[in-house]
Amino acid sequence: MKHSYFASQEHHSSDVMLPLDEVLQNIAFNEAGLIPVIAQDVHSQEVLMLAWMNRHALELTLATKKMTYWSRSRQAIWKKGETSGNWQHVVSMSLDCDGDTLLCRVEQTGAACHTGRHHCFYLSINPDDNKVCVQKPWANHLSFHLLLR
Amino acid sequence: MKHSYFASQEHHSSDVMLPLDEVLQNIAFNEAGLIPVIAQDVHSQEVLMLAWMNRHALELTLATKKMTYWSRSRQAIWKKGETSGNWQHVVSMSLDCDGDTLLCRVEQTGAACHTGRHHCFYLSINPDDNKVCVQKPWANHLSFHLLLR
Repeated sequence: MKHSYFASQEHHSSDVMLPLDEVLQNIAFNEAGLIPVIAQDVHSQEVLMLAWMNRHALELTLATKKMTYWSRSRQAIWKKGETSGNWQHVVSMSLDCDGDTLLCRVEQTGAACHTGRHHCFYLSINPDDNKVCVQKPWANHLSFHLLLR
Repeated sequence: MKHSYFASQEHHSSDVMLPLDEVLQNIAFNEAGLIPVIAQDVHSQEVLMLAWMNRHALELTLATKKMTYWSRSRQAIWKKGETSGNWQHVVSMSLDCDGDTLLCRVEQTGAACHTGRHHCFYLSINPDDNKVCVQKPWANHLSFHLLLR
């Protein structure tokens, strides 16, 4: 992990930009060459999903402004939305202090989750009664739309 | 990975709770026994950080309602806030469809990031000019407070 590069940038002036190439070269990809990527809905602020990118997927995402992951199960580039039509259009991207996690704020077309739910985090843990609730498909998305009325 | 358990729960009724123990036993910890955990500010909705938990850290988090991670660099339990005072009080927890990522919405005391910034994602990537901006400490938190005025 190349944390020392990012540690040295903690106090870097916000008026002097870093070259993107330099930053990309120092990203702390894990031993499989991957970095976890959080996709957040830019409108509802909901965290939609977490998936993984390798350097190539990240470069494709930067070039196309469409979220492109590395599928660990299929071991292949995964252009999110290519088969479902549920694209994620990139609005902003940021790296964390250790350079080992990427946060992308996106415009989500349709559902982010393969189950049809707007986001993937539908298993709600209740530690007080040691139970887990499986939220209904679309319940969370409907509540978001109701809030906007 | 135990994705088949979570795949079989996709259509589970939201009226019939799952036992927490059963769910915990099926979490898809990685080969190092860890799961990525996203901490989101329950008030501002900002994604604060991503860190990792093993089964023991997750059980401590459930028991204490304070975010407790596994420090990969120190190879030790990391009670967030124990040295800094910047605790993360758990408000809600949810697992994703694959059972391999945890999302926790928290009340953040002080700064989540060790740099003093409210969150860790302060390196903003601008793909249009191939530059990265290092956001100033507290700039993001101040802007949040200004929005609330």
